[in-house]
Amino acid sequence: MDEFALIRRLTGGRTGKEGAVGRSVVVGIGDDAAVVEPTPGRQMVLTCDSMVEIVDFLPWTMDDASIGWKAMAQNVSDLAAMGAEPRYALCALAAPKGFPAERLEALYAGLYACADAYGVAIVGGDMSTSPERVSVTVTAIGEVEAGRALLRSGARPGDVVFVTGPLGLSAAGLDWLLRREAGGGEPWAPLIAAHRRPRPRPAAGRALLGLATSLNDVSDGLAGEAREIAEASGVRLVLDGAAIPVDAALAAYAAFAGRDALEFILGGGEDYELVGTAPAAKADELLAALRAAGASPALVGVVAAGEPGVDLARPDGTTEPLERRGYTHFE
Amino acid sequence: MDEFALIRRLTGGRTGKEGAVGRSVVVGIGDDAAVVEPTPGRQMVLTCDSMVEIVDFLPWTMDDASIGWKAMAQNVSDLAAMGAEPRYALCALAAPKGFPAERLEALYAGLYACADAYGVAIVGGDMSTSPERVSVTVTAIGEVEAGRALLRSGARPGDVVFVTGPLGLSAAGLDWLLRREAGGGEPWAPLIAAHRRPRPRPAAGRALLGLATSLNDVSDGLAGEAREIAEASGVRLVLDGAAIPVDAALAAYAAFAGRDALEFILGGGEDYELVGTAPAAKADELLAALRAAGASPALVGVVAAGEPGVDLARPDGTTEPLERRGYTHFE
Repeated sequence: MDEFALIRRLTGGRTGKEGAVGRSVVVGIGDDAAVVEPTPGRQMVLTCDSMVEIVDFLPWTMDDASIGWKAMAQNVSDLAAMGAEPRYALCALAAPKGFPAERLEALYAGLYACADAYGVAIVGGDMSTSPERVSVTVTAIGEVEAGRALLRSGARPGDVVFVTGPLGLSAAGLDWLLRREAGGGEPWAPLIAAHRRPRPRPAAGRALLGLATSLNDVSDGLAGEAREIAEASGVRLVLDGAAIPVDAALAAYAAFAGRDALEFILGGGEDYELVGTAPAAKADELLAALRAAGASPALVGVVAAGEPGVDLARPDGTTEPLERRGYTHFE
Repeated sequence: MDEFALIRRLTGGRTGKEGAVGRSVVVGIGDDAAVVEPTPGRQMVLTCDSMVEIVDFLPWTMDDASIGWKAMAQNVSDLAAMGAEPRYALCALAAPKGFPAERLEALYAGLYACADAYGVAIVGGDMSTSPERVSVTVTAIGEVEAGRALLRSGARPGDVVFVTGPLGLSAAGLDWLLRREAGGGEPWAPLIAAHRRPRPRPAAGRALLGLATSLNDVSDGLAGEAREIAEASGVRLVLDGAAIPVDAALAAYAAFAGRDALEFILGGGEDYELVGTAPAAKADELLAALRAAGASPALVGVVAAGEPGVDLARPDGTTEPLERRGYTHFE
């Protein structure tokens, strides 16, 4: 089976959830390129992110369907962080020669499951052999009302800092997957699910249009994402350690592992919740809008003037500057 | 240097040629996603293609800047094959840890050189380590007047078959690069240039709107590309072996190598010229329009009714059905 037959088998003419995009897909998979009809009054939002075996995941921390899900989810999350509605995606997959077709099918099933869950039409892509490893690059395209995209640069002193849900679960799930012995059970299923099948927040991002002054998604740990807002906005974010929500499963795992739950929250990534800022006067409206969008939001700090950076206020009244944390490549 | 610093160094805030896209780039590199303003009355055209070391190129057949150029060029070519104007691109690059920053800079310089040559703004991307090999995935976004994209499926019996320029040069250049001894000179410079720095034909694609009935780019050899049109259109393409132009450098190389020049043309890919069909009554207008767009077109066959496929008519009057040729993955 060559890649043309394989692509037909894997995509089966599907372009994601029927009806979710309707006739806006003019030409789908099968020609040199796809053609889509932009919605009048909207701008197109474009993002691209890769997952590479060994670097971004290990064969024993992810199953094939979850690799597909997560490759799509991280791109949907970048659109969410702009306040955009996810619409289309292209998927470039590379796998070693001889990689079983069943495993490719599982990976594609995961890509489509996530695309369907978020109303994304997969309109194209590329399939290639790779010398050794699996990698998936997804490009996602969304739409946002013209001029209203939420950037990282709008935070102002006096704003509140919010998150759209509990953080650190994915990092704790990965911590467990890296340490457990083969054949062990899954006592930390909610943490493992958070790591393998993260749920990005585009509905929350849409709800924040006109309310948030800045927005970012939590792909690399709260400390690093808050720092990106601080640097882009030229302000200081002061996180309140006591106000940051700690999920019960994360608390239990942190106790089991002898770690501080805040470590997973501040330094661990891939939760794909959102962090942002908003005028204090709009805080109640914002929390209500996020709850209506299915999120579990919390206010976790304030924006101050000063050298761009992030502080953590401890319950004992002390304040500690947070260095950038989270995974970086090419260090 | 982590990847954030590296991305800043490599992209330097550039988003391709100034003025080529003007203010249609609302948000460029540096936030969660890019934002672009669609042109009213146009549809967006989306395509994505990867280049993987060892699979798509070998370290000694390509230099770093040419890898970047070609990764962009093959995507520009897919937009050309739809009749679309190239506008934006996102580039996902993976390279092994310890890969020299100078080599990444050269690769990016090649990406930008090709983007600039075709008026493409690079608005985003991803940079990641890979376990062993370099790979580049480019997603290109173009625009075409609503409803006018050129597909593979419109060829009709009685149409003529045309190409926008000489073919087979890239395949001959690769043949030489694979056989030459280390330290040899470059007697086949035009062929090597065709392989390393192919020139896709978006201006020709634009000129074909309203004239061509089908269009494809020649990324995998004329036989395979003609077959894609034949299958999508439900027709038979009859190529005239005597009418297919043979470039002088290719003819000389074929004689040197003891091969038939037609082998390189029919079976070798990556020329990134266009092949298509048009009503016979429009042939003169089409040739003039392509010449005005800088191409060197030729009529190379006719469309017939019959079982979908491709025939080659030989100068001696015999006709031979052409099997699909060209490189396929996962065979």
